[in-house]
Formats: sequence, structure tokens, C-alpha cells
Amino acid sequence: MSVESDVIVMKLSEMNREKLQQFKTECETAYKAFLDEKLSLDMSRGKPAPKQLDLSMGMMDCLKAEDFRAENGLDCRNYGVLDGLPEVKHFFEPMLGVSSDELIVFGNSSLNAMYWAMSVAMTNGVLGGTPWRKLDKVKFLCPVPGYDRHFAVSEFFGMELINIPMNSDGPDMDLIEKLVAEDDSIKGIWCVPMYSNPGGVVYSDEVVKRFAALKPKASDFRIFWDNAYCVHHLTDNPPVQVNLLEEAKKVGNENICYMFASTSKITFPGCGVAIMAGSKENINDLKKSLAFATIGYDKLNQLRHLRFFDGKFENMLEHMKKHKDLIAPKFNIVINTLRDELSDLEIADWSEPVGGYFVSFNQKGCAKRIVQLCKEAGVVLTGAGASFPYGIDPEDENIRISPTFPTEEELQKAMDVFVCSAKLAAAEKLLAE
Amino acid sequence: MSVESDVIVMKLSEMNREKLQQFKTECETAYKAFLDEKLSLDMSRGKPAPKQLDLSMGMMDCLKAEDFRAENGLDCRNYGVLDGLPEVKHFFEPMLGVSSDELIVFGNSSLNAMYWAMSVAMTNGVLGGTPWRKLDKVKFLCPVPGYDRHFAVSEFFGMELINIPMNSDGPDMDLIEKLVAEDDSIKGIWCVPMYSNPGGVVYSDEVVKRFAALKPKASDFRIFWDNAYCVHHLTDNPPVQVNLLEEAKKVGNENICYMFASTSKITFPGCGVAIMAGSKENINDLKKSLAFATIGYDKLNQLRHLRFFDGKFENMLEHMKKHKDLIAPKFNIVINTLRDELSDLEIADWSEPVGGYFVSFNQKGCAKRIVQLCKEAGVVLTGAGASFPYGIDPEDENIRISPTFPTEEELQKAMDVFVCSAKLAAAEKLLAE
Repeated sequence: MSVESDVIVMKLSEMNREKLQQFKTECETAYKAFLDEKLSLDMSRGKPAPKQLDLSMGMMDCLKAEDFRAENGLDCRNYGVLDGLPEVKHFFEPMLGVSSDELIVFGNSSLNAMYWAMSVAMTNGVLGGTPWRKLDKVKFLCPVPGYDRHFAVSEFFGMELINIPMNSDGPDMDLIEKLVAEDDSIKGIWCVPMYSNPGGVVYSDEVVKRFAALKPKASDFRIFWDNAYCVHHLTDNPPVQVNLLEEAKKVGNENICYMFASTSKITFPGCGVAIMAGSKENINDLKKSLAFATIGYDKLNQLRHLRFFDGKFENMLEHMKKHKDLIAPKFNIVINTLRDELSDLEIADWSEPVGGYFVSFNQKGCAKRIVQLCKEAGVVLTGAGASFPYGIDPEDENIRISPTFPTEEELQKAMDVFVCSAKLAAAEKLLAE
Repeated sequence: MSVESDVIVMKLSEMNREKLQQFKTECETAYKAFLDEKLSLDMSRGKPAPKQLDLSMGMMDCLKAEDFRAENGLDCRNYGVLDGLPEVKHFFEPMLGVSSDELIVFGNSSLNAMYWAMSVAMTNGVLGGTPWRKLDKVKFLCPVPGYDRHFAVSEFFGMELINIPMNSDGPDMDLIEKLVAEDDSIKGIWCVPMYSNPGGVVYSDEVVKRFAALKPKASDFRIFWDNAYCVHHLTDNPPVQVNLLEEAKKVGNENICYMFASTSKITFPGCGVAIMAGSKENINDLKKSLAFATIGYDKLNQLRHLRFFDGKFENMLEHMKKHKDLIAPKFNIVINTLRDELSDLEIADWSEPVGGYFVSFNQKGCAKRIVQLCKEAGVVLTGAGASFPYGIDPEDENIRISPTFPTEEELQKAMDVFVCSAKLAAAEKLLAE
């Protein structure tokens, strides 16, 4: 698609009013053509495509009928085992870089594990501290743009959310260190340290170490370290990140963090296994609370995952390369379309991630309009503002693009609509100024 | 086993001191013989036996490799569907006697669903009411003896638990009606209406209707109606019970209850499916809260259950008859041993349930001693007092016997130890008076 055929490609801000009007008219023509196509495309959520799910079809029958015993002989069909089968815990150790006694294997949802951990802090406190519910105010730090479901959990519990700007190497640590040192009502922070949602930011070792050494005024402050994309690389030579818990131990601060991950975007989302890790003291305390909430999670599904990867974590990493082969081309479609169509206009910027599930797109004052234009043309995006607490994007600039679910053909079409909408929104805005 | 060979069987209380001493000596001799056997038997929890689990081996491979779509075409391998697949909800309708829009399908644990529903009441309130956490005091009614894990959840949330005596037709409704009418800090009651844990009591229709018509001072009072054993009959002509929600609707009181059940003791405990039901208003409100806690539960496991029962609830009922065939003889062993060995002595009484998983045994002032004697002889029982809030049995009388897990041979041995311990404890107590 090329709507600016008759317009010399230049910065939009440098166009005179006449050229801008001409540009807008051409955008409108192109946009109307999309309307006529009556599209129905979805780039709203970070969902694996069916072809990615097909990679895990072995999950459907890798657990044979008579294969229901753990290595210690335990009958996985029956009740018991609160925190995960020993061999399954062992399998997941490298995922979060911890040992089995620093790990709990949950059910199918790491979001549920995070929700639960936060709800326990609310009702019963953290390591013997005052239950957060008993405090007049609980504040939580939210690097923005971030994951809407994280922020929603904190909102649900009535917390006050504080936006923290993201830099290219992670959240603004100067600000975080300052805030948490001053205010003991700040009880934690949401982090996606590897390929952040949606920015794709990989926290630098420096940032991880500063998190590890964080000395909040509140002793029950916890970093909710959602390492959802820790093995979700888009390159063959992925970045290596120091381990938060390990660094925290070095400075005697190992209770600072709760870490999470899951197999949701590895095997089958919704039918996977979630894990949580932390210091032995944190984990032992959480296990005591967990014993009130359940008798145990689905051990046959734990065993199924173990069998599918033949008990070897390296096999899971190999499996992730197959995912990469399927989705890296989709990220290329997004990036290339944005580059080809928007770079010269200088109306927007975007992330070019080397892992994770999203491209973060920014165009000041235009996010809502772009999402609306796309929606009317049959392309569903995550709602504008969704990546900010309370759904309020102060600059109305950020849009999360989720390239994985559509086919490449659908995605190219959706991106064509997207860049057309971005241009139209930019022209509208400039002409209205 | 017959320790009273030389003693004329008579009420223990009518024996003179000499006879009692002789009786005790014979019990001690028998008990020592058990000690020499170095037994290791477990009657502590309501766990199905391996042979019961074998009934569900079809669960291991009934979901074929290409069978991952719901009836509406939805890919069950991927994210989505908060409250259960439509056909799975439909399947479970008769289990709690509700319609699909009054139902949520959860993960593998109904205890977890109850915990969650109570935690939401704590943090966010019930139907827009004040979050319970904001109240100075929250009280919860506990029919006793009852299920330790129920009481534990309320204790975990810092509630004050109030014992409610159980009658042969259910909890003492006069007392309940009086208490809840007076005190708006009483926010709910734990009920196991069919084959109560541990008493095996089937609430009468009269009791269910009085629950349905309950008018508590607190509008956010909820009956936690754990119908864990609703299809777990021990006879071919099981009792039929009126439906709580249906009765509540008749009197315009449909928001009074949360109802729960699961397949834990039907297919594989820990790998099953839990359900919750209530009025549309309750369920819709809870679904809004649930959306913060998870994206959805394991839909492949939902589909697996549907396939195993060929989509027909009647097949599940037929399946339960196979369970009955395996466990009814075990209940007979317990009851017959208690009758044969203890009836004439008149030192104890016990339930003779027609369903569920437990026999409730009462011997005033002797429960702790009996559990201790059994433990020392290698027979593990649920701890004395466990069936009461805070673990305190005011009369030190109740012991929960769980006959299902051991083999019949093991169970007979365990019961031999049990009645011997019961007699010895009774004699010790009488001689000490």
C-alpha cells in the first residue's frame, strides 16, 4: 500500500497546509477502500496462532494411560502435593534460575498465582506484616506502558497506582528508588523484565541489580517480577539477563521479589503450568497460606508437560525456536510496514523487540483515533490507554500491537489498515491545530 | 478380634471396678499385640482408593489428539472462556440443579473456588456491599462436627467461628435463624447438605427450605453450600433432597447461597473440574471479579470430562454406582465392627451413613486418647478436634473415620485397632473417675 504516491515523502510536520490537506485526502481514499473490504481482523491480545499450538500437539497424547506415577511412586491421580511434583519443580528450576525449594508449581495461570499472592498480602500480610487491607492506603508502582491485567489486579484491590516511565533499559530506577525510600505505603511494583509488555524492553543488568538492592521503607514491599517471556526469544542469540533473586541474595535482600512464569505461550495457553519463585522464606510462608486455598494442582498435567519435553529443559528451549520460526516473520511484517510507511513522516515511533509478544507503538495525541479508525475498518486492536493504569494514557499515544494470532496475510492487511489510520490521524491532528 | 472373651458383655458403666480392671487388662493385652504388628495404616483423609481411580482410567486417553474444539468451534488449546465451555456448563446443570447462566466451571478444586469466593467477599464485598475486611468483626456459622478445611478458610481470613449443633436432619435451624436475625456481623454458614462431613447427615427438605427462606440481618450473608457428595450414594435408592436455589427463588431469596461441587471423588481428585452455582445476580457479579483473577481454566480438561462421560450426566451417575460397589463394603466393615464390638458396651455412638465419605464416631472425653492410641499402634486417623473450629472439640468426643482409602483387609485391621483403642480409652476414663 502506498497512499503518498503523489506526495513527496517528507516529515508531516514540515508540510504546508495545502500539501497536508492533499496527504489527508489520499489517506481518506485509501481508508475508504479498506472500509469496502469489510475486514475482520484481530490484533488485540497476545495469543499464539493455531500453527503455534500445533507445535504442542504431542501434549494431547504424550501421557500414556498407565503413566500416572511420580518418580517417588506417588499416584498423581489422587489428592496431594501442594507445591508441585519434585521432578516437575526440578524441571522448572532453570526457567526462573532458582532451586526447587524456592519454587511453587501452580495451576494453569500465572496471572492467577499473582492475583492470589496479592490477595494474600491484602488479607493476611506479607511475612507476618500488617495485612495490606488494614492500611489506609496501598500504592503500587506501574512502569508504563505496561500489562493491563497486572494493573487491573491492583485496581481491583483498591490500590493507588503510580505511573513509572520506562526507559530503553527498564523502568526509571532513580524515581523508583526515591519513591520507595520515602513512602511506606508503596508496597510493590509490577515488572516484566524480559521483553516487557508491550515495550519489548529487556531490563539491563544494571537495572536488575538496582532492583535487587532496592531498600524500600516498607519491609513488605515486593517486586512482582512476571517473567512471562523469559524463553520467548525472536533471535538465535537472545540477550542474557542477570537473575534478580541471585543478585538480591548477594546483597542480603532475597525477600524483595516474587517471580512468576508459565508455559502458557509455550504449550497450550489455559492448559499449561504456572510457576512462582522467591526466597525460601517467602516461598515457605506462601506455601502455608496456599494450604488454605487448595489441596493441590493438577499433577497429571504437570506430568504431561514433563513427558512432552522428555524431562529436559533444553527441549523446551528447542521447542521455543519453533515458535520463533513461526512468529519472527510476523514481527518483521509489523516492523517493516511501520518503517516503510511511517519512518520518513516522523509522526510516530515504535519498539523493534527481539522477543516477547508485542510491538509498542507511540504517536502523540493519536492513539484513541487510530484505534477507532482501525476498529471501524474491521481491525481490532487492544484499546488505547489499556497499557496504563486506570486506562488513562496521559499523552494518548500508546498502542499495543499483537502480531502473533493472525496469519501473515491477515497481519499484512491489518498493518496496512493500521499505518493508513496512523497517517490519517496524524494529518487530522495537524490540520486541527 | 474379641478382647472381652472372659467378660460378660455388658454396659461398661455398669461394670464394677474389678470387672472394669479386668476388662482394661484384656484391652491392654490386645492392644500390645497390635503394637507388635508394627502396622502402618491410614484412615485420616477422604481419599478414594486406587481401585476407585482405576474406574476412571478412560480419562487418560478419552480425549483424542485432534479433539480440541468446543461445539462452537472454539480452540480449547488457546486462551479464553472465563466461566466454562457452554457444553460443559450444560453437562453440569443437573449436578447442582441449576441452569448454565447460574453456573461457573472452575479449575481442579472446589475448595479453591470457595476460598476465592470468600476472599472476594473479604477484599471487595458481596454484590456491592462493604468489603468484609473493612468490618470490625466477621462471624461465620459452623455446623459441628464439620469439615476442617472449611473452618480453616474462615479462620485464615480472621473470622470468628460459631459452633452450631447438628441434628439428625441438619444443623439446628432454630438457633441459626435466631442468630442471623440479630447479628449483622454474621456473614455466612458452611454447609455440606448431603452426607455431611463427617456426620453423613442428609439435610431434610424442611431444613433446606428454612435455609432457603433465611432472612439474615446482613444482606451480604451467604450460605456456602458445599454439595461435595451430592452424587456419592452408598445405596441404590438414595435420598432425594429439594434444591436450595430453587426453594430460595420461590421465596424471592435467591441471592442467599453459593453452591459448590466437583468431580474430585468422581474422576481423579486433583485433576477434576469444580463448579459453583448461584443466582444469576450472584454469578454475574462473581464473574466480573473472576475476570481479574484468571483468563480462564483448563478447557481441555473440561472437554476430557465431557468425553469420558460421553456428554451424558446419567453416565456420571452410573459411574458413581461403580464407586459405591467398591466403597459400600468398606463402610460395612466400619459399621459392623463398631456394632459388634461396641454396641453392648454403650460407650460410644456413630453415624451409619447412606452416602459420602465418612463415619462420624463419638465417645465423650475419649477422642484424643483414642486417636493417640491408634497412632501409636500405626493407625493414622484425622486428628481429634479437627472437625471443630479452632480444632477444639468441647466434649473431646468426635473422631472422623475415613474408610475409603485402605483395602478392605487393611481397613478391618485398622478398625480392630480402633475399637480396641476405644474400649481401652473408655476403661481408662471410667477407672480414673
